[in-house]
Amino acid sequence: MAEAPVRGFPPQEFADRTKRAQSRMSEAGIDAILLTTEAELRYFSGYLTQFWQSPTRPWFMIIPATGKPIAVIPAIGATCMGRTWIEDIRTWSSPQPEDEGISLLVETLKETIGTGGILGISEGPETHLRMPVSDYRRMMTLLPGFATRDCSAILRDLRMVKSEAEITKIAHVCSLVSDVFEDLPNFIHPGMSETEVFQRFKIKCLEHGVDDVSYLVGGAGQGGYGDIISPPSERPITKGDVLILDTGCIFDGYFCDFDRNYAFGHASDQAKRAYEAVYAATEAGVAAAQVGATCADLYHAMQDVMTKAGALGNDVGRLGHGLGMQLTEWPSNTPQDQTVLKPNMVMTLEPGMTFAPGLVMVHEENIVIRESGPEFLTRRASPTLPIL
Amino acid sequence: MAEAPVRGFPPQEFADRTKRAQSRMSEAGIDAILLTTEAELRYFSGYLTQFWQSPTRPWFMIIPATGKPIAVIPAIGATCMGRTWIEDIRTWSSPQPEDEGISLLVETLKETIGTGGILGISEGPETHLRMPVSDYRRMMTLLPGFATRDCSAILRDLRMVKSEAEITKIAHVCSLVSDVFEDLPNFIHPGMSETEVFQRFKIKCLEHGVDDVSYLVGGAGQGGYGDIISPPSERPITKGDVLILDTGCIFDGYFCDFDRNYAFGHASDQAKRAYEAVYAATEAGVAAAQVGATCADLYHAMQDVMTKAGALGNDVGRLGHGLGMQLTEWPSNTPQDQTVLKPNMVMTLEPGMTFAPGLVMVHEENIVIRESGPEFLTRRASPTLPIL
Repeated sequence: MAEAPVRGFPPQEFADRTKRAQSRMSEAGIDAILLTTEAELRYFSGYLTQFWQSPTRPWFMIIPATGKPIAVIPAIGATCMGRTWIEDIRTWSSPQPEDEGISLLVETLKETIGTGGILGISEGPETHLRMPVSDYRRMMTLLPGFATRDCSAILRDLRMVKSEAEITKIAHVCSLVSDVFEDLPNFIHPGMSETEVFQRFKIKCLEHGVDDVSYLVGGAGQGGYGDIISPPSERPITKGDVLILDTGCIFDGYFCDFDRNYAFGHASDQAKRAYEAVYAATEAGVAAAQVGATCADLYHAMQDVMTKAGALGNDVGRLGHGLGMQLTEWPSNTPQDQTVLKPNMVMTLEPGMTFAPGLVMVHEENIVIRESGPEFLTRRASPTLPIL
Repeated sequence: MAEAPVRGFPPQEFADRTKRAQSRMSEAGIDAILLTTEAELRYFSGYLTQFWQSPTRPWFMIIPATGKPIAVIPAIGATCMGRTWIEDIRTWSSPQPEDEGISLLVETLKETIGTGGILGISEGPETHLRMPVSDYRRMMTLLPGFATRDCSAILRDLRMVKSEAEITKIAHVCSLVSDVFEDLPNFIHPGMSETEVFQRFKIKCLEHGVDDVSYLVGGAGQGGYGDIISPPSERPITKGDVLILDTGCIFDGYFCDFDRNYAFGHASDQAKRAYEAVYAATEAGVAAAQVGATCADLYHAMQDVMTKAGALGNDVGRLGHGLGMQLTEWPSNTPQDQTVLKPNMVMTLEPGMTFAPGLVMVHEENIVIRESGPEFLTRRASPTLPIL
């Protein structure tokens, strides 16, 4: 088992992220950014807690034009936030639905920007505002001199390019889960239900050192499977099944996201050919994943291989995506996405194809883009469908 | 180990939920409700997937004035949604940021309501809209005859009162995790780091039959702990520590949410007295948890005990909350919350107090409100601080 990287980041990492944001804010004429979601707050502060699963309390962070971010948060988070590099931590006693931090937030925004200005809000694709709509409306009413401007492109450009410390965490969890997948033939057997398979896999990942198995989906079926986002069923694995497990495990707040396929006893020629097609598509994807190429280039490189192999379509809607603090991040490998690959972007390559009515084959690996060419973070799957 | 309840719900359960929503919509003059969040879609459909962790794609469900809900979702979800009771499933190929389901959603809303009407949106406390702000704005521009009205009170009133089938699932996961906490002295020892303690606890819960350990927070410190929402540290447990573990485990999409405290070797009289105070506060809370009482009554019953015991405050901001499909649900045990307890509400009682500078003691149990009085779903903690 690989030695775990150091947890957390040095304060300089957050200072650099903040400075880069402030430089882009200045260019865009944004006076301050208001953040409300887990990944955004954590990106600028290192604030890591599972407490976000409770929908009760909103959490706010303001990125001012200069200086450190300001946290405006429920009192329950003060101690945990106090361990980060953030110094200005303002709290209110929450829950308090009649004024859920809004007065304190408005006061802090006025103190930061003055009586009027441009407030950056994440409004673009893949974002949402994690606060009640009624509170947002009230906040804007209390800020009559303020206008909002979408800042989601700034945040996604920053987050898309990872630091070496971030890549080390992603590489670590990819390595741990690669070990577990390689060991899978030793602990998964026909006769186990899908539920048991999922349980054993989760335990193995935890024993091996991941913090959480946040995401595990997949399933098995005779000759192939039909979808890849379902929870497990009570159906036992039987000979002739093809099983897919697709997992997002976490180490120190960073995800892997990849899958593996296994057949039991025997597999149809169709399934074997489909597996080899998605494997070859991944090879084509990684060959195309050079600095300066676009996500559309990755898409076409992979899709061409699958089209030639007789793919009947793909309901996933893309052939991979960004990866890091969330299971999936911007950008997407689609024909429309013209995002240009830069060094230190971490991506998944996820070719998938329907190979017979109701049967799909999906493969996924994780890579990092480097000046010298892409590097695998996952250990490459078998080139042929493993038959257990 | 208790036998697991049947997974899922009969279609009648979803039909009943939908009819109750439609009756309230009719009273409120709402022509259709638009849902965007995981718990809301699942409540009306049974659609259960971890795929929500990907922020890329919005998911929509419309509750019309009559008839079944309509799903407007990314194509990747069609197979999984097709296994629910929902019949009208409309899909678009996603991701497609330039039109992320909005045209299809607008077309479906017009078909459902006509050229104008009142659209219910969750805008109140504890809610958010899980779609990009820019897409929401575009949707409303494309629906010029529509006005919105907050429907969050309707949804929370419905979800607050659980069915027997829901209670059975919550009771099951509470029972499993009670077993694991009772077994904890056999697998947690001084010398293990907090990270190891968390890992062992998660594995034990999975081995014992929970689907996921979605939430595990806490920590240990000499004489007591300082906050209850942090991830584990590498610090080893030593004699004189007090450890709290607070967990939200899941069975079939339903949560438990409770904690247990343990001292190692010895504990201060202060810590012992604080433990006995929060235990006694829980007793007072459960005695007060009668049909017709309010959440404020529960708060005062518990707080009075802690005040008399010398409590120095409480940063949590409430003394328990609703529980079910989410780790925390409406309502809250605060002095302001006048929600009246009804049969089949599932609540946590969570008295917590600062008992010395920087040291808190928090206790939590889960109960269901019944006509005949409250019933514990968790097996009651030890009345005195366990010393391992």
